[in-house]
Amino acid sequence: MPGGADQTLIPFLWRAERLYDDTEIVSRTHEGRVRYDYADYADRARQLADVLSADGHGRGDRIATFCWNHHRHFETYFGVPGAGTQLHTINPLLPDHHVEFIVENADDRVIFVDPSLVEKLEGPAGSAAFDGVEQFVVMGDTVPDTSLSPVTDYESYVAGGDPGYEWPDIDEDQAAGMCYTSGTTGKPKGVEYTHQMLWAHTMTTLTPQGIPVADDDAVMPVVPMFHVNAWGLPFSTTAAGAKHVYPGPSPEPADLVSLIEDEGVTVSAGVPTVWLGIQQYLQEAEGDLSTLERVIIGGSAAPESLIRWYDQEHDVEVVHAWGMTEMSPIGTVASLKSGMDHLDYDGELDKRTKQGMPVPGLEMKVVDDDGNEVPWNGEDFGELLVRGPWVTREYFERPRATEEEFEDVPASDASGESEEQHSSGRWLRTGDVVTVDEEGYVDIVDRTDDVIKSGGEWISSVELENAIMAHDDVAEAAVVGVDHDTWGERPVAFVVPAGDVDEDALAGDIQAMIEADYPKWWRPDAIRFIDEIPKTATGKFSKMTLREEYGDRVHVQDVPEDAAPEAEEE
Amino acid sequence: MPGGADQTLIPFLWRAERLYDDTEIVSRTHEGRVRYDYADYADRARQLADVLSADGHGRGDRIATFCWNHHRHFETYFGVPGAGTQLHTINPLLPDHHVEFIVENADDRVIFVDPSLVEKLEGPAGSAAFDGVEQFVVMGDTVPDTSLSPVTDYESYVAGGDPGYEWPDIDEDQAAGMCYTSGTTGKPKGVEYTHQMLWAHTMTTLTPQGIPVADDDAVMPVVPMFHVNAWGLPFSTTAAGAKHVYPGPSPEPADLVSLIEDEGVTVSAGVPTVWLGIQQYLQEAEGDLSTLERVIIGGSAAPESLIRWYDQEHDVEVVHAWGMTEMSPIGTVASLKSGMDHLDYDGELDKRTKQGMPVPGLEMKVVDDDGNEVPWNGEDFGELLVRGPWVTREYFERPRATEEEFEDVPASDASGESEEQHSSGRWLRTGDVVTVDEEGYVDIVDRTDDVIKSGGEWISSVELENAIMAHDDVAEAAVVGVDHDTWGERPVAFVVPAGDVDEDALAGDIQAMIEADYPKWWRPDAIRFIDEIPKTATGKFSKMTLREEYGDRVHVQDVPEDAAPEAEEE
Repeated sequence: MPGGADQTLIPFLWRAERLYDDTEIVSRTHEGRVRYDYADYADRARQLADVLSADGHGRGDRIATFCWNHHRHFETYFGVPGAGTQLHTINPLLPDHHVEFIVENADDRVIFVDPSLVEKLEGPAGSAAFDGVEQFVVMGDTVPDTSLSPVTDYESYVAGGDPGYEWPDIDEDQAAGMCYTSGTTGKPKGVEYTHQMLWAHTMTTLTPQGIPVADDDAVMPVVPMFHVNAWGLPFSTTAAGAKHVYPGPSPEPADLVSLIEDEGVTVSAGVPTVWLGIQQYLQEAEGDLSTLERVIIGGSAAPESLIRWYDQEHDVEVVHAWGMTEMSPIGTVASLKSGMDHLDYDGELDKRTKQGMPVPGLEMKVVDDDGNEVPWNGEDFGELLVRGPWVTREYFERPRATEEEFEDVPASDASGESEEQHSSGRWLRTGDVVTVDEEGYVDIVDRTDDVIKSGGEWISSVELENAIMAHDDVAEAAVVGVDHDTWGERPVAFVVPAGDVDEDALAGDIQAMIEADYPKWWRPDAIRFIDEIPKTATGKFSKMTLREEYGDRVHVQDVPEDAAPEAEEE
Repeated sequence: MPGGADQTLIPFLWRAERLYDDTEIVSRTHEGRVRYDYADYADRARQLADVLSADGHGRGDRIATFCWNHHRHFETYFGVPGAGTQLHTINPLLPDHHVEFIVENADDRVIFVDPSLVEKLEGPAGSAAFDGVEQFVVMGDTVPDTSLSPVTDYESYVAGGDPGYEWPDIDEDQAAGMCYTSGTTGKPKGVEYTHQMLWAHTMTTLTPQGIPVADDDAVMPVVPMFHVNAWGLPFSTTAAGAKHVYPGPSPEPADLVSLIEDEGVTVSAGVPTVWLGIQQYLQEAEGDLSTLERVIIGGSAAPESLIRWYDQEHDVEVVHAWGMTEMSPIGTVASLKSGMDHLDYDGELDKRTKQGMPVPGLEMKVVDDDGNEVPWNGEDFGELLVRGPWVTREYFERPRATEEEFEDVPASDASGESEEQHSSGRWLRTGDVVTVDEEGYVDIVDRTDDVIKSGGEWISSVELENAIMAHDDVAEAAVVGVDHDTWGERPVAFVVPAGDVDEDALAGDIQAMIEADYPKWWRPDAIRFIDEIPKTATGKFSKMTLREEYGDRVHVQDVPEDAAPEAEEE
């Protein structure tokens, strides 16, 4: 067939170098602020690729980073895949045993590590899991005292490379990147990104309803570059020929505001915590966000008050986005679509606090337990399934996890010519329980692991928690499903009171509040008061711990007939 | 490898139908103005696909159109590829023997034809070339008196289809479209578009430096839908969820202005003639272009005065774009890039009248006769070569033409794992002779067939013609290269005088003008006065005819030593 050239990352860099040779790449680093342009950048990326090639690394070899966001890390973004090798960005916040597991699992050959992370890496690097690592490269121009070996500094390492290195011919199916996703249970799962997946992801994010970057933008990814390629921004910013601004190691709000002011940042991106931090900082200190037009927030939901504050105080549009490691990562973006002129400001905020609409090229569906699609009415919920050219079809060397989290839909090939199962038939089960409203905005209401399945119907633990936490006397609350003979599962609430309160009265209040707003069968069968909700390493409620610790000790009463799901249904 | 889902057109339609179900598709037709929405459109496209499938058409079958721009033609854009079949859009302006050739060459099974084009089709349809055509479908709800057989009307044809038809699983390498490109010599050459090529083209055109369409746009393609899918606009407009406006058969300027006014058109596209026509119309009649933001002009170069007039009189930005049938078709777009603030208005216009910069994902190079890249300095010129995911790698069943017009660059695969010649190594020779300026803007100076190669250097026939036609006493002029023993080729000018003039004096004037502005060796060796420059069917100078008629009768003198290219070089 007459198909076109392979979809690889290199033409994006070629274009930036030729059309935007003097556009800047600016980086806060351990050594201060560094700036150069695309012409310099391309030379250095080629030098890096040349050294990797000369050292015998090629297709199939994984090259890892253990770094914050800076220009040298960005050099690996094109230098490593450009050499035909695969960039594996390791999350330095992982516990040591996870780092050991993934370095061994990925068989990393070279590890680039930040000076401030050398000590953190030394622990796992002492294990046999690191036996395959041939070289450690410290991201700077000196080598600190370290047990990592053999070790060199980045500037010496790339100095031997040829800036005139010619990129090898690369296949679009060749692996370009890799990230591990860590669930609450089990070992991290590897997700590989081919050149084609990153190409397609770059393109869809550049469309008006993605996270468009134009050549006159200055883009500062605060989201770590080890979190799914900083949501693809280093690639899309290059494809657009825009300016890059990297905030370096552990940036404080003052550092970020200073970069925005000095470098004219127009687009930035990060988790809500970052923007809450800047908000707090700016409520006490001076700061000029006038160049900043858009802030992309993902990772977890931003409070409505945050969106409102940036909008009203600084004329900065906060754009909610949702994605997954398995999705390269963007899936939905909560920009306002056409035909929403009837909404007032609060109505708009209501849309903008949701996870948003699928970007062009993605398909999604929401299914109930039986696999039937639920209607887009903003109320019915089910698990979100997605597929698209930048959604992976498997986990790295994890056939069982792949089988569990992907769903093959039987192909109905009209032509009869095709013999293999088409890739487009494979849906990723996101594990998110969502509603979709009439306008197509996705709203995550729970994780499938946490949703409570009672009498064939789903109850959102997150909604119940929010309802309970709205009570003034409640500090924290978590709702989990516990086994029940008749209904399968029933909700039980764990509540941390705010101070010294009458627990019986509070329990009564809570039940009354829930009964007023939700179906009767959503009412928790028991309310347990505890001192603290157990948390995961990343600060989320650990419902697994709650179930393990309390599950069999909670006495669940039979639910009255009139509160059963079936009775409510008709 | 873990690559994502196939890149096919269907998810674009899925998204438009689900997110923009009530966004309009408006069409001027033989029967008046028709309007419906994406929900209706998707139903009708599925009905069409169902009928095609039920009639036994599937993968590998070509379904042709012989139509202007309207909603029914647009229905074939998704309905035909969505059924797994291939949409072949025939240019109804072609001479009959070309229509015969391409219908036979493509082996078209069904032909959709406009009522106003039935008579035109009847001629070629009488030939044996049409023996494979199983069905003619007239685009309306009645069948006119016609010799086409078997024939039905479109509304009856699709009425039997199921709007609940399920799209088959489609492979990204499967053919979705087809167009023929007609050179000045030889038979038309078929170019096939795979789903993946159209997907990639749609995506790159939606980036900020392509031809971005957002969901609040209303897009009116005046460029015919048989000209390389109306430059991809029906696909990109759908992917964006924007409103479509189709101008129907043979629209007059008044029709187009009326559609812009009534439908709030924001983006339109067409050849310069269309916009010159509207300009003339608006200089005499009233018209409101206030909703119109951008006009994409391609096909041939727009005069600077036209760009200036739309800008200054109507605040409409004219955007030059360049492409080819082989490129799906967009290659370069002349939007202003960042960092051009130093330019005044005339300086900006100078950039905007060029063909523009390559869109993201495309690679290009400009090479001299020896295949060496020429510098980007706005002066040196050579042939433009391109490659990219939406650039075809071959002509349909034309291996020799493929060999001539594509260049394989030896793959230097560092990994050594890949055995096949990678597709990314194949460059398309565009046949355009161009300069590229320091900013990366391409400017077409000639066609390779017309450029004159003298003493190893190139002379632009187009530049010489423009210089000669600038003389008040010249009506028309064409410059061609004729064979020369010493220099290979030398320029000869054919001049049509404006009225009764002293030919010797005019010849002297012309030589003096050229000598003042160009290297000595650009001076034509002979100036021949003729009554008329022969033209091609599309109104362009037929230099082939000039060479055939006059080539051997022109006496070319030896060029003086000091006018030789080599002497000029140092």
